[in-house]
Amino acid sequence: MVQAVQRAVQILRELATAGPRLGVTELADRLGVAKPTAHALLRTLEAEGMVTQDPESSKYLLGPDLLLLGNAYLDTQELRTRSLTWADLLASRAGEAVWVAVLTGDHVLVVHHAFRPAGAVQILEVGASIPWNTCALGKAMVAWAPDEARERLLAGRLGVLTGASVTDPEALRAQLDAALTTGYTLEDQESALGDAGIAAPVFGRGGEVAGAIGVVGPVERLLAEPVRQELAVAVRETARNLSRDLGAPRGAARPPRRGHDPSAPPTVPTPTPAA
Amino acid sequence: MVQAVQRAVQILRELATAGPRLGVTELADRLGVAKPTAHALLRTLEAEGMVTQDPESSKYLLGPDLLLLGNAYLDTQELRTRSLTWADLLASRAGEAVWVAVLTGDHVLVVHHAFRPAGAVQILEVGASIPWNTCALGKAMVAWAPDEARERLLAGRLGVLTGASVTDPEALRAQLDAALTTGYTLEDQESALGDAGIAAPVFGRGGEVAGAIGVVGPVERLLAEPVRQELAVAVRETARNLSRDLGAPRGAARPPRRGHDPSAPPTVPTPTPAA
Repeated sequence: MVQAVQRAVQILRELATAGPRLGVTELADRLGVAKPTAHALLRTLEAEGMVTQDPESSKYLLGPDLLLLGNAYLDTQELRTRSLTWADLLASRAGEAVWVAVLTGDHVLVVHHAFRPAGAVQILEVGASIPWNTCALGKAMVAWAPDEARERLLAGRLGVLTGASVTDPEALRAQLDAALTTGYTLEDQESALGDAGIAAPVFGRGGEVAGAIGVVGPVERLLAEPVRQELAVAVRETARNLSRDLGAPRGAARPPRRGHDPSAPPTVPTPTPAA
Repeated sequence: MVQAVQRAVQILRELATAGPRLGVTELADRLGVAKPTAHALLRTLEAEGMVTQDPESSKYLLGPDLLLLGNAYLDTQELRTRSLTWADLLASRAGEAVWVAVLTGDHVLVVHHAFRPAGAVQILEVGASIPWNTCALGKAMVAWAPDEARERLLAGRLGVLTGASVTDPEALRAQLDAALTTGYTLEDQESALGDAGIAAPVFGRGGEVAGAIGVVGPVERLLAEPVRQELAVAVRETARNLSRDLGAPRGAARPPRRGHDPSAPPTVPTPTPAA
């Protein structure tokens, strides 16, 4: 690992979370480095457009080139680019907003948001970061994740965003297991009061979980029967189509084997009959 | 300057522009470093979520944490946060889309986009990067920039996006000078065929150019009289209000002095009568 690069990234994260404005001394303290070290890193980051210095206070802020790189990430994200049309189709069919997300650490990162076809002002949620256990998208990605990742996430920090957020690992495990038989996951006001979600996993070329797609909207509309059932079918079908578009093999959505030795070499998947 | 950090940023830029997928050897060649050096940088960036490795090809792509940092930049950008309400008001008044932008290098970076109040599907342009000379927003920021910055940009690379893009420095200089007397700038299909723009500069606490705000829409609607005149007034007034909101002193929009020695210490601005 290159320590200077780690420290530079740490500076950016401090400015993103503790900021918006931090001085050299504050940053040096937070990084546990000498002030000249922090200063050299900041000058380099400033020359690269990654931070800017407030001319008045001499404190540092995040720089505009981070937005350029963030956008470039979105443009080069195959799941996102392939999902644009599928998300629009699902939004039309469901009459609800559609989110596409990936898992980064223990959070869900929204990489695409298709607005509800008609409706009031909607805020674009691309870039939003949500604890995995509080939303249908996160549960869908973790339900089909390999044993090791699933157990690590269940044993790790579980976010709380509302009184309905589920933080009992066993209750979550039961939800994840149930998803493997229904093919979709649910959120009932676990990330935002009044909001519900229905999501399904999206698989990549190697059959691995590449992300998730789902509908998001008022709990009164989404979870009332028979709408819930119809939306679940639409979400699951869209996720399957998007997976095929990404090159996923047929049968990628079947439950992963549980309880095998994670250190064992990967086995060749047995062919499954076409669905 | 910390060389490792410069190189790490260079890797990210290569993946953003030349990518989306580059291997260690390609990246080492582009950076002019040995392969182990590139590999160490990539492993560090991967551990930080700044790049990911495609499991199949072993090539590298930009990572999701760049989107988090890009979003954090937007959230901590005072011009953007203060412009949200003003941009909505201008969009309602003008019946057109409104963009707010900053200058980064020789490009305009869109940091906020208020949609046209009614209308067809609109693509969010936040994060879009446009050569300064091809759009009204860029011309507004450069017209009021200090001599040195203005001359450097006029002498630098001038982008071409349509047949109408102006790349003659003297023609551009005339447009910039004219803007200083009218208080706004125009684009007539210089960045996109069929699109026009009207923009005005936004000033910060120290009286410096902090960005620009403007309307963007079809040339038939925007540049036809008397609409053009009415929109220009609305844009100019909004820019002035937003500037005041950012703490800009009265009179910040007056033409900057030209032709003084840029190395001379800044002079105390002479008080101007309230507009």
